[in-house]
Amino acid sequence: MDFKPKTENYKQKVKNSFNSQKFMDFIGAKLMKIEPGFCEIHLPYNDNLTQQDGFFHAGIISTLADNAAGYAAFSLMEEAASVLAVEFKLNLISPGIGDLLIARANVLKTGRTLSVCRADVFVMKDGVEKLCAASQATLIQIKKP
Amino acid sequence: MDFKPKTENYKQKVKNSFNSQKFMDFIGAKLMKIEPGFCEIHLPYNDNLTQQDGFFHAGIISTLADNAAGYAAFSLMEEAASVLAVEFKLNLISPGIGDLLIARANVLKTGRTLSVCRADVFVMKDGVEKLCAASQATLIQIKKP
Amino acid sequence: MDFKPKTENYKQKVKNSFNSQKFMDFIGAKLMKIEPGFCEIHLPYNDNLTQQDGFFHAGIISTLADNAAGYAAFSLMEEAASVLAVEFKLNLISPGIGDLLIARANVLKTGRTLSVCRADVFVMKDGVEKLCAASQATLIQIKKP
Amino acid sequence: MDFKPKTENYKQKVKNSFNSQKFMDFIGAKLMKIEPGFCEIHLPYNDNLTQQDGFFHAGIISTLADNAAGYAAFSLMEEAASVLAVEFKLNLISPGIGDLLIARANVLKTGRTLSVCRADVFVMKDGVEKLCAASQATLIQIKKP
Repeated sequence: MDFKPKTENYKQKVKNSFNSQKFMDFIGAKLMKIEPGFCEIHLPYNDNLTQQDGFFHAGIISTLADNAAGYAAFSLMEEAASVLAVEFKLNLISPGIGDLLIARANVLKTGRTLSVCRADVFVMKDGVEKLCAASQATLIQIKKP
Repeated sequence: MDFKPKTENYKQKVKNSFNSQKFMDFIGAKLMKIEPGFCEIHLPYNDNLTQQDGFFHAGIISTLADNAAGYAAFSLMEEAASVLAVEFKLNLISPGIGDLLIARANVLKTGRTLSVCRADVFVMKDGVEKLCAASQATLIQIKKP
Repeated sequence: MDFKPKTENYKQKVKNSFNSQKFMDFIGAKLMKIEPGFCEIHLPYNDNLTQQDGFFHAGIISTLADNAAGYAAFSLMEEAASVLAVEFKLNLISPGIGDLLIARANVLKTGRTLSVCRADVFVMKDGVEKLCAASQATLIQIKKP
Repeated sequence: MDFKPKTENYKQKVKNSFNSQKFMDFIGAKLMKIEPGFCEIHLPYNDNLTQQDGFFHAGIISTLADNAAGYAAFSLMEEAASVLAVEFKLNLISPGIGDLLIARANVLKTGRTLSVCRADVFVMKDGVEKLCAASQATLIQIKKP
């Protein structure tokens, strides 16, 4: 779908918010791409992010999906607004075995109050991407006073 | 509901798995309680775990909910089995503002293959617990070869 | 939890809305109980409502869960408002084999805009209730102009 | 994605199951298309299927999404297997105002035990399709004894 941002400043707005999330820095996540209604986040493998088998932890996978969905929605919101996740649902499709996690989110619907996004998380191993998780999320625009 | 574990060893089995998740150690999460079909996990506040407003990040909240659900289900599984999350859904109900996150999960149904759990996440501030998120999850038992 | 309705008229408001849903009449569903933040709906078995094995169809089970959640939330909304489902998630826990479906929904959180509910669906067979499905839903209050 | 069915008989298998669901006949739903990993179901408007405003009821919308997802997954399952919905999540994106509901489901992952699908529901009005709901579902293959 083709979306028009409500502010020319949409990329900077998303970057500023992403950069102020200390958790992103803590795990080593990087904001790679913002387009109107789209967001991509990367996260290199790191021993600290693993579950019992040494794979990416499901909490990390959901963190990336949730954040990508939030910023895809935020890219279409007004300048003087912030975004909050209302809820999301995530299916874990294959184990997080690889060197890099890639979350890509697309807006399905952007409304005055609520937005709906889908985010897919891929895991890259030996240069090949594999679908690792699929999610669907609802976001809300909070107008700043 | 009253559940009977399939192995006397169920507490140790859960502890061993939890302790082998490096991500739990990295964020500072602690396994507080395991009963048959129940799990409670605590996580003290830490600057590294925050989103743009300095509150607990939604990814952290979902990590705790997912892990509590997984181990509640695992407590009822066979000795020679491991547990994987199939999917989960989480509603963020109030902002994660406080000193401690507490996730509590209960099994709704334990089957031969699939289990269903509900997990609630509370945030403790000035000694008062507040519901922060509510989730529902599906888990699968993987028999070890 | 103890909720206070915003209008004395909350039971009548819910009944009026339920009675104007032709689909409820078509399938034979009955509104059995409304309390502040709670709703119960019953549906007797009927050959027309079945899937391939002759059990209650999952679509019927989700219809009941969705409606119970919607009216539990609506019971706490303002007089001059209507309710819409934003989304819901449903786990099918045991087959819908029995004479009567019973959906019970409780509000977890009621906010100015959004509400979150959990609804459980039970199937009654030979006088015994069994958990058939568990759901979690987000509802939105729409102010009438 | 390109899927290969495990049985030549996959279309007939889906048709037989669909035709044995009395609820599909009761509401007037029609199976329009089956391809490997894909299913499309149509449902013409009918007064009996409405909520309080005279639009398609959310329960009907979720019924169509759930069934399309189930049969998309079933098209890739073995001959001697049946399919059950484990769970699904549905976002209601715009009101069900129109003459025809169209549900289209695609398989994201087909495994030995579990499958994951996405189903979108469109509403057709004056010849124009509009996205009405988006869902994500988990299905399980039950081997016949």
